[in-house]
Amino acid sequence: MNIQLADVITIGDEILYGQIIDTNSAWLGTELTQIGLKVRQITSISDNPEHIIQTLNQVKKEVAVIIITGGLGPTKDDLTKQTLCRYFNTELVLHEPSLLHIAHLFKRYDREVTELNRQQAMLPATCTPIENPLGTAPGMWFEEEEVIYISLPGVPFEMKRIMSDTVLPQLKEKFQGQQIQHRVIQTIGLGESFLADKIAAWEDNLPDNLKLAYLPNLNGVRLRITGFSNRQDNLEEQLNTETNKLQELIPEYIFAIGEIPIEAAMGNLLKEKGLTISTAESCTGGHLAHKLTSIAGSSEYFMGSILAYHNNIKINQLGITPDDLSQHGAVSEVVVSQMAANVRKLLNTDIGLATSGIAGPGGGTPDKPVGTIWIAYADAEKTIARQLSYNKDRLLNIEYTTYAILNLLRQQLNHA
Amino acid sequence: MNIQLADVITIGDEILYGQIIDTNSAWLGTELTQIGLKVRQITSISDNPEHIIQTLNQVKKEVAVIIITGGLGPTKDDLTKQTLCRYFNTELVLHEPSLLHIAHLFKRYDREVTELNRQQAMLPATCTPIENPLGTAPGMWFEEEEVIYISLPGVPFEMKRIMSDTVLPQLKEKFQGQQIQHRVIQTIGLGESFLADKIAAWEDNLPDNLKLAYLPNLNGVRLRITGFSNRQDNLEEQLNTETNKLQELIPEYIFAIGEIPIEAAMGNLLKEKGLTISTAESCTGGHLAHKLTSIAGSSEYFMGSILAYHNNIKINQLGITPDDLSQHGAVSEVVVSQMAANVRKLLNTDIGLATSGIAGPGGGTPDKPVGTIWIAYADAEKTIARQLSYNKDRLLNIEYTTYAILNLLRQQLNHA
Repeated sequence: MNIQLADVITIGDEILYGQIIDTNSAWLGTELTQIGLKVRQITSISDNPEHIIQTLNQVKKEVAVIIITGGLGPTKDDLTKQTLCRYFNTELVLHEPSLLHIAHLFKRYDREVTELNRQQAMLPATCTPIENPLGTAPGMWFEEEEVIYISLPGVPFEMKRIMSDTVLPQLKEKFQGQQIQHRVIQTIGLGESFLADKIAAWEDNLPDNLKLAYLPNLNGVRLRITGFSNRQDNLEEQLNTETNKLQELIPEYIFAIGEIPIEAAMGNLLKEKGLTISTAESCTGGHLAHKLTSIAGSSEYFMGSILAYHNNIKINQLGITPDDLSQHGAVSEVVVSQMAANVRKLLNTDIGLATSGIAGPGGGTPDKPVGTIWIAYADAEKTIARQLSYNKDRLLNIEYTTYAILNLLRQQLNHA
Repeated sequence: MNIQLADVITIGDEILYGQIIDTNSAWLGTELTQIGLKVRQITSISDNPEHIIQTLNQVKKEVAVIIITGGLGPTKDDLTKQTLCRYFNTELVLHEPSLLHIAHLFKRYDREVTELNRQQAMLPATCTPIENPLGTAPGMWFEEEEVIYISLPGVPFEMKRIMSDTVLPQLKEKFQGQQIQHRVIQTIGLGESFLADKIAAWEDNLPDNLKLAYLPNLNGVRLRITGFSNRQDNLEEQLNTETNKLQELIPEYIFAIGEIPIEAAMGNLLKEKGLTISTAESCTGGHLAHKLTSIAGSSEYFMGSILAYHNNIKINQLGITPDDLSQHGAVSEVVVSQMAANVRKLLNTDIGLATSGIAGPGGGTPDKPVGTIWIAYADAEKTIARQLSYNKDRLLNIEYTTYAILNLLRQQLNHA
């Protein structure tokens, strides 16, 4: 097999200082893999000319394609472009179409073109400029000694648009014929080592061209099978066979095949069954509703929520009995069950979900320490409540609770 | 100045395939900078022994500290540990305290120790093991030719705990005396090039040991001043002076000094003024409430929300006039203003915020295309509505809207 390799280089101190999280590289990894290029290495460096040149010299020996992001933009692109001129032994010249594009963009916003922006139309003479429909810094395509170098701005939506419109289609044409394919099987409810034990025999018998990886996250363990082959149909069939075996082995833990978040998988199930849903949230403060409504088309099944942070709202809007509130406290089986059942009736949905807990860092008591959380599910026939106990930080508690209640919903929908 | 450098190496195909986003490196960048180590490069590579060794050989010449994350865990740590044994010319031996720790952890969950977990207590003979309080894979500390190598599991909360408990305090002691300090000034409401124009003269006059960076994000442009010095007091004073100048130059665009999200800055303002707040959300679907409640202590000022996705809930819970809904549509100045004013009264708060729009990808019309969004602010004296128009994707529309309404809140609180 002849898998072509690509490297990603991101330029900018903000990544090294930890002031932004590098989401561009993950996106590039996914997209390059999809056209059959395997990402060999991602290197994040500062915008220092010597370091840029040293890195280019090191990686060009290893790969066919180098994608460089960052270091372009009205306040910083000069350095990267000067460095690329040095590396490719060329000089900056004015690129008229880019200047026109910048003027056009600014006209739309009714702004004058500044000198900084005018400089963005100066490009290395040996590059092929790549149009940036959403911004002022054009991309650049270089080829030298059979290596392709592509330099792009670091602003995520500009970079993605240039890649999708121009770079990916051209690379795909150049490197057709090889196949890398992933299949992701998403599990919830079983830790990594126990899962590994349960599927050890299956894993040992995987064909040589398939590789398994365990990817634990907040919301369970994703299993990724990666296949390499020269024939797409072959791979597809192999991956189907192995996925089917896995589904027979651990059906109760699998919630989705593919990179579908659990909130999308639940959305599909609700649509299939023609059910509607609402939420009554205290400790999750809207995060559960946000997850449900982050899915396109969620208005088909998600009707609304009452976020009852203050107890008055639990009483006045959700109709929680004041006696129960004072006797059991807001974080209790009695109250969370009422919340789920009442929001269901109030917003006229088939299912109601509710959360109430102490997200922290304050608000804990010896009886109910930070991380004590109740969740509930209600439909026309029953109400089911569960207690969770975490001791993580506020945001983790909110996220874990959201996933736990989505898993409770999944278990109920699967039995319905 | 004698700034010591550190490199971060992350091991794992999942980052290269784009299946997870590398948040560990950003966290490490922040923490290492805080103890005076400058991160020179972050390198993400696959769990391939040759590549690991090649990378270690390349970077060890450049830095004093190398932090390696990933490649440790019940299903994969053997390869990384074997590779480190090869690199350091040593072999695996049983580390009794680690075995006891694993047994202890498993007893708490009432689970048997598996063979996979037992192997996690086998460690390279020349390393100093580092306790992992939250997991089964211990960290490892190596020293060779004046370079410190630290290998840690990739699970974020385990890695962070080991760093905070053990690694950072020890590194801090070893490398005391140098200072790197950042000051972040967060702006909103002005694009990068216009901001750069406005503060050009100030930037040109910055002292040589201070460096300015523009960090644009969804929510404005962060300005970062980085200072290098051997004397902490000096730096602090310099940064204060320059920050003050900037505050005089562009007061209306600055919403915070420091890495404080706008929702936290608004929380502080609300507490200061003793005001409470509620939200009525349609297109943001809980994201605005989630942002507000992600801040510890937000229950002091945030009371609750009505998420009215379906029009019936706008009518029944929020009291929107059905005639207005049918005449103007849910996405209109009239309806969003009623939503803000009504939720304020209903939940008995000083301020009400409301959003209504077409987040997409479906639901657009020629009149109101995807990205047409109305936001409103209401207090006892007035209701202010604004129209936004975006044309990005669903999640970006939700996020941009959330930041736009937080900025509207900021402008009103600053005048109140």
